[in-house]
Amino acid sequence: MQRIVVLAGGIGGARFLRGLKSAAPDAEITVIGNTGDDIHLFGLKICPDLDTLMYTLGGGIHEGQGWGRADETFVVKEELAAYGVGPGWFGLGDRDFATHIVRTQMIAAGYPLSAVTEALCTRWQPGVRLLPMTDDRVETHVLIDTADLGESAPGEGAESRRAVHFQEYWVRLRASVDAHAVVPVGADAAKPAPGVLEAIADADVVLFPPSNPVVSIGTILAVPGIREAIADAGVPVVGLSPVVGGAPVRGMADKVLSAVGVETTAAAVARHYGSGLLDGWLVDTVDEDSVPSVQEAGIRCRAVPLMMNGTEATAEMARQSLLLAEEVRA
Amino acid sequence: MQRIVVLAGGIGGARFLRGLKSAAPDAEITVIGNTGDDIHLFGLKICPDLDTLMYTLGGGIHEGQGWGRADETFVVKEELAAYGVGPGWFGLGDRDFATHIVRTQMIAAGYPLSAVTEALCTRWQPGVRLLPMTDDRVETHVLIDTADLGESAPGEGAESRRAVHFQEYWVRLRASVDAHAVVPVGADAAKPAPGVLEAIADADVVLFPPSNPVVSIGTILAVPGIREAIADAGVPVVGLSPVVGGAPVRGMADKVLSAVGVETTAAAVARHYGSGLLDGWLVDTVDEDSVPSVQEAGIRCRAVPLMMNGTEATAEMARQSLLLAEEVRA
Repeated sequence: MQRIVVLAGGIGGARFLRGLKSAAPDAEITVIGNTGDDIHLFGLKICPDLDTLMYTLGGGIHEGQGWGRADETFVVKEELAAYGVGPGWFGLGDRDFATHIVRTQMIAAGYPLSAVTEALCTRWQPGVRLLPMTDDRVETHVLIDTADLGESAPGEGAESRRAVHFQEYWVRLRASVDAHAVVPVGADAAKPAPGVLEAIADADVVLFPPSNPVVSIGTILAVPGIREAIADAGVPVVGLSPVVGGAPVRGMADKVLSAVGVETTAAAVARHYGSGLLDGWLVDTVDEDSVPSVQEAGIRCRAVPLMMNGTEATAEMARQSLLLAEEVRA
Repeated sequence: MQRIVVLAGGIGGARFLRGLKSAAPDAEITVIGNTGDDIHLFGLKICPDLDTLMYTLGGGIHEGQGWGRADETFVVKEELAAYGVGPGWFGLGDRDFATHIVRTQMIAAGYPLSAVTEALCTRWQPGVRLLPMTDDRVETHVLIDTADLGESAPGEGAESRRAVHFQEYWVRLRASVDAHAVVPVGADAAKPAPGVLEAIADADVVLFPPSNPVVSIGTILAVPGIREAIADAGVPVVGLSPVVGGAPVRGMADKVLSAVGVETTAAAVARHYGSGLLDGWLVDTVDEDSVPSVQEAGIRCRAVPLMMNGTEATAEMARQSLLLAEEVRA
């Protein structure tokens, strides 16, 4: 049985995984999920990426939106607003609330996030083994200009830049302002969650879905030991570009790539991962011109359709990534 | 301006207060609410009696039911059940959840329950000053036969009786089994909340609505200092019988009165409070026969209609209690 390890953020990773399950129904898939965008609101621990993975693979996702629950209602949030309790910008539905209540109670009872995630998955049966990258707290912060927050600078010596939580940057500010730096606070002291390094060591192939290379996969790789384990695993590591035609397919990859000094092109993202980590890279057919430059960087590259329009198109992307992995191995 | 202090449980107290506000629109009313039926569920602090008072007087109550919110939905609870997380017997709606989330967050941030209650009331504007009896944790437990829990007694030496939380006795078991004792755990070490003793000392009259004499008013009186303050206030103390025609108008007063060795009659409840505390007592017209025996116990007594059918009937009950207070004073 083929053992596949996938590093995943939220929507892009979750949709790719649905295709991968269809393309490789007999594979044993372990997903290492990003927890850098976790946030504490209303006294609850919220793990947006883990939940998007769990809901998408477990049949509970709001399909059109890509995150949150299908048939969601927002009564609790309306009532919190009636008490003047916010933030109002975070879209927390009633069904979703229950997940966070269960998670928060289990963590308060002493269970690590990995055990909590396993417990939640007994309901959702995602068909993959879902592991958080770490049981430790990591929180991605984004450095922005305070002027962009609409806050007045109260005189000289005032900070002109401020770090905001990634969710505030992405959900509240809609990534509409420049990001000067992206810092996964706590990552340097975090340990990979139980099972993460073992799954990588036992893998036949490691895949990077078209997730955000900075705030999703980049954050996972920032946990000491994970990048090294992947580089040392001696198995093909293949990624799919989240950038198509010079723009992210979804999300704010352009903003955060810029913050880390990387161009928003399929080739630049491949070089950012680097040939020390990445063996193969899929770009979209519109980026066929970039194939030679990726290959020159020591990364085997193919151009194939990379738009995840439905499960069949996505399954074909997964198949192509596994084919490229076999080419690398051979 | 007349200053009225009312000791109140949940539904009965809340409905009486609506009548009192109508009967004495210019009075300054301070309500001392029972917190002995507070419970912690799903990591949240729930104060059923305070919430019933707040929702009823603030226009948010489910009128037919008497507790919980109007237009309530139960999505969070359904989802918790889908995770296998209970208890399912406690009816916690989505709107109600928001109240508990705000309360729990404020308590975690270090605010005492009295400050939290005041903050919640800025939304509800109940038209009275609502104080919890104490900021300390008090939890009413009820001693029942383990056999009544449907649990097998695993051999000799097994406990034949067990204490359950009042909510479990009332909501889960529907008070359908005998109560052998009622214990307000923690009451002996509790201090009256800020403002409680001051309000009693400043009162012109103290009223006991037709709330449960054991698990509502009895629990409030079990907080050291409150009974003494009322007895020493030197103002009329008038109560309304929650027992009519030998049965409680609502709730399980018969069960818990039996646990403390008191008959379920209007007269027995008056004698249970005693003339050292109570100056006046209203019984329902169907209990007119009991008036002499209450008066013999040194408590001035009148028979008037005590069914709270609508605000006008309830306002008339409140008027009668204030009239009796004036008789006592004169």
